[in-house]
Amino acid sequence: MNLEKIYHYIDTHKENHFEKLKKILMQPSVSPQNIGIQECAELVAHYFEDLSCETEIFETEGNPVVYGKYHTGAEKTLLAYFMYDTQPYDEPGWTHPPMEATLAPLELPSGHVTALFNRGAINTKGPMMTLLNAVESIQKTEGDLPFNLLLVAEGEEELGSPHLPDFVEARKAELQKADAAVFPFYLQNTKGKVELFLGVKGIIYFELECSGKLWGRGPTEFGIHGSNKAWVDSPAWRLIHALSTLTEDNGNTVLVDHFYDDVAPPSPEDEELIRKLVETFDPEPFKQTAKVEKFVIDEKNTEQLIKKLLYTSTLNIDGIWGGYTGEGSKTLLPHKATAKIDIRLVPNQERDNMLPLVRQHLDTNGYTDVKIRVLDKGYNWSKVSVKEPVAQAMIRTCRNFGYEPEVWPHLAGSAPFYLFSTVLNIPYVSGALGHGARAHSPDEYIVYEGNEKVLGLDGAQKSMVAFLDEWLKG
Amino acid sequence: MNLEKIYHYIDTHKENHFEKLKKILMQPSVSPQNIGIQECAELVAHYFEDLSCETEIFETEGNPVVYGKYHTGAEKTLLAYFMYDTQPYDEPGWTHPPMEATLAPLELPSGHVTALFNRGAINTKGPMMTLLNAVESIQKTEGDLPFNLLLVAEGEEELGSPHLPDFVEARKAELQKADAAVFPFYLQNTKGKVELFLGVKGIIYFELECSGKLWGRGPTEFGIHGSNKAWVDSPAWRLIHALSTLTEDNGNTVLVDHFYDDVAPPSPEDEELIRKLVETFDPEPFKQTAKVEKFVIDEKNTEQLIKKLLYTSTLNIDGIWGGYTGEGSKTLLPHKATAKIDIRLVPNQERDNMLPLVRQHLDTNGYTDVKIRVLDKGYNWSKVSVKEPVAQAMIRTCRNFGYEPEVWPHLAGSAPFYLFSTVLNIPYVSGALGHGARAHSPDEYIVYEGNEKVLGLDGAQKSMVAFLDEWLKG
Repeated sequence: MNLEKIYHYIDTHKENHFEKLKKILMQPSVSPQNIGIQECAELVAHYFEDLSCETEIFETEGNPVVYGKYHTGAEKTLLAYFMYDTQPYDEPGWTHPPMEATLAPLELPSGHVTALFNRGAINTKGPMMTLLNAVESIQKTEGDLPFNLLLVAEGEEELGSPHLPDFVEARKAELQKADAAVFPFYLQNTKGKVELFLGVKGIIYFELECSGKLWGRGPTEFGIHGSNKAWVDSPAWRLIHALSTLTEDNGNTVLVDHFYDDVAPPSPEDEELIRKLVETFDPEPFKQTAKVEKFVIDEKNTEQLIKKLLYTSTLNIDGIWGGYTGEGSKTLLPHKATAKIDIRLVPNQERDNMLPLVRQHLDTNGYTDVKIRVLDKGYNWSKVSVKEPVAQAMIRTCRNFGYEPEVWPHLAGSAPFYLFSTVLNIPYVSGALGHGARAHSPDEYIVYEGNEKVLGLDGAQKSMVAFLDEWLKG
Repeated sequence: MNLEKIYHYIDTHKENHFEKLKKILMQPSVSPQNIGIQECAELVAHYFEDLSCETEIFETEGNPVVYGKYHTGAEKTLLAYFMYDTQPYDEPGWTHPPMEATLAPLELPSGHVTALFNRGAINTKGPMMTLLNAVESIQKTEGDLPFNLLLVAEGEEELGSPHLPDFVEARKAELQKADAAVFPFYLQNTKGKVELFLGVKGIIYFELECSGKLWGRGPTEFGIHGSNKAWVDSPAWRLIHALSTLTEDNGNTVLVDHFYDDVAPPSPEDEELIRKLVETFDPEPFKQTAKVEKFVIDEKNTEQLIKKLLYTSTLNIDGIWGGYTGEGSKTLLPHKATAKIDIRLVPNQERDNMLPLVRQHLDTNGYTDVKIRVLDKGYNWSKVSVKEPVAQAMIRTCRNFGYEPEVWPHLAGSAPFYLFSTVLNIPYVSGALGHGARAHSPDEYIVYEGNEKVLGLDGAQKSMVAFLDEWLKG
C-alpha cells in the first residue's frame, strides 16, 4: 500500500470522517436501557454498505449483530470486531453534554489537546470509526482492499454479549476463514505511552436481592413505617450482613470457598512481559484520569501492583439500593434491598464455576433466601501469545510511529474475545494509536486534536492503516 | 353542648366537610422534597380563619407554623397540634393515584368500607380536618365554642420538626395557658378496635456515607470502570462492612457500646397497662395491613411481643444506595455509598446521647472516615399518665361510642410531643375514632364510609365533638 497517499487522503477528508463519527456518537445506543439500538444498528449497516460490504443485520433474540463482508479474493482475511452499544449516559457529573459530541480543550500530562466528549467516544464508537475510516481511505486511494474483510458489530457488549455466541455459531464457517481478528481501540495513555493488551479477563454479572417475600420475614410487599423495626425484621439489614460475609473487612479479599482455587500463576511468557513492564509502567496517568490516590497495595512495588491488577479475581459491588433514597428523612422499613455484583475471572477460572460457589457460600452461611439474579452470563477470559503475527504487526506499527509499546499480558477489563481465541481459534490484537478515557464514567472522551505525544483522530486512522500494512507484510 | 344537634349538623354537612378534606389532601405538601408547602400553609391558615381564629403564619428558618387562636373567655383552653406536611408520594406500588383523593371499596377484616386513598390521608390531614370540622360544627350549632382554642399546625413533622421548638419558645407564654393538648388521629384498627397511645418514642435520623474522598482510598470523585476493583479499594464495600458492625447478624440487636444503657424497664403504671393489653391485643390487623408474616420473636408470647415493640430502641436502615442502580449491568466501582438510618429512643434514652455513641463505635472499629450527616435532630420520647383528665376524657368517649379502648403505654412511632409534655408541661392525648393506615406506604387511606365496627368520616367527627364534651365535663 502507498501509505503516503493514503495519509494524504486522511488529511484531506478529516471533516468528512469527523462528521461520520459525530453522527454515530450522537445516535444513542444504550443497551442496558434499550435506547436507540435499532437506529444505531441501521447506521452501522449503512456505514458498512458505504464500504461496499455485503451487509446483513443478523437478528438475535436480543439486539442485532451487524455483519459486513468484503471479498476481494485476496490471500488474507481480517476479522474486525466492534460494539455499537454503549453504557447509559444519565449519571451525574458530566460537564459536557453526554450526547452532543462536544469538542473542548483538555489538559493532559502530555500537554494540551482538543478532546471529543461523548458517551461511547472511547468505548468504542471512536475506535470503530477509526477502522472504518481507515478502510475507506485505503479503498479510495488504492482502488481496492488488499485483504478480505469481515466486519462484526454487536449491540450487546455492555450486556455481556449474550447473543454474540449465537451469531458466531451461525456464521462459524465464514468467520473461521479469518487469519486474524482486530478489536480497534486506542492504546495511548494520557502521557502518550502505548499500552498493548494481549487478552482480557472474564466476567459474570448478577444481582443479589434480599426481600421479605423470599425470606418470609420482614415486610413482604412494600416498605412499612420505620417504627415497626422494633418487632419486624429488616431485609435491608439482612442483605448487609449477607454481603459482609462475602469479603474480608477490606472489601478486597473474597471469602467464598474455592473462589481462588483455579487462579493460575502468570505463565512464563507473562512473567517475561511483566519483567519488561516493570521498567516502563507508570501508574500516574491512571491515577490522574480516574482520580484515584491510593491502590490496594503499595504502588512502589510495581511488579506486585501489576500482578495485583492482572491476576486478581474480584467480587465488586457495582451498585446497591433499597428503601428510601431521596432527599431528607422518610422513615421506612424497606421490604427489599439489592446489590449488583460483578466477578472478574482470570486464567484459569471458568465462568460457569463461579456462581455455584457464591450460591454455596450464601447457603452455607444461612442466606438460602438471598436471590441470585443473573444479569449477564458473561465471558471467559482470553489471551493470545505475543508471538502471533497480528500482535507483532501492532507492535511494529507502534515502533514505526516512534512509540515503544508497553505490552501487557492482558487487560483487567473484559470483552468477548474468548469467542475468537477459543471458539473460532483466531489470534487477535487490540489497536490503534490514539487516546481516550473515562469509559463508563462522566465526560468520556477521545482526543480529537492531539499534541506531540498523543495522536489525534487523523493520527489514529493513519496508525490503523499502517497496522493493516504491517499485518499484510507480516 | 347539645351533641344531638351537633351530630345532625355533621350529618347534613357531610359533602361540605368532605370537600374541604379533599382540597387539602390534593394540595401537595411534601416537606422532604419541599413541594407545595407554602400553598398548603396558606390553605391551613384559610381554614383557621374560617373558624374565626386570629391566624398567624409564623415564619421559621424552615417551613412556617400556622397558628390560630380563638378566645371566648371560657375557663378551659385546648391546644390542638397538627402537621400539614406529608411524606413523598413518588414511590411505586400505588394502585390508586396518590394525590387524587380517590374513593374506592376496601375489604377490612371488619367488613366492607369505602376508603379515601391519598398521601397524607391518615398521616395526618384526615384527622386534622376531623378536628377542624368538629369545631366548625360546634360553633355553628352552639353559637360559640365553650372553650378557648389554640391551633398549631407545623409543616416539618416529616423532617423531625426542626423549627417547631423555635415557635414553641416564641409563643410559650400563650401556649402554656392551655390545660391540655390533643393530637387528632384515628384510633381504630382494621377490626374496629380502639388503640390509644399515651406517648411516643423519640427519634434521630441521619445518613452514614462512605466516600473515596473522605476515606482517601478508592475512586475519589466519580465511579470508575469496575475492572479497577483489582487494584483500587471500594467505598461501597467499606460501607457494607461498617454497617455490618452496627448490629448482630439478625439486624435486630445493636452492637454499639452503651446503646441500650439508658433503656428503662416499663414503669409500674406501664406494667399495669400491659397486663390489660395482653388480654385484648391482636397482632392480626397489623400483619394483614402491613403484609408482615412473622415478628422478630414468637408472637404467641403476647406480653413479650408488646414489650419488644414498645421498649426496643432500634437502629433501622431506611434506605441505602450507591453506584449504578438502573436496569441491566453497568460495571462500576462506585466512589461512594450512603445509608439512611433512624434510631428510635425509648424511656429514658436522651436524643443527644445517641449519635456520639455511633461515632465512637465507628471510630473504635476503624471507620473514622465514615461520615455521619444528621438529617433530623429528632425528638425525645414523651409520655403522659393515663390518669390525666384529657386521657380519661378520650377513654370515656370511646366507651360512650361502645368501644373499650386498648390503652398502650406509648406508640412505637415518634412525634414532637415532648414539646408539650416536657417543654410546655401540658398533658395531651391522641384521638378520635375512625381508621386509616399505610402511613409512609403506597395506598395510604382513611375510611370514608364505615361499617358496623369502623367509623367513617362523619363518625370520626362526632367522636371528636364527644371527646371535647367529655373533656369539658372533666
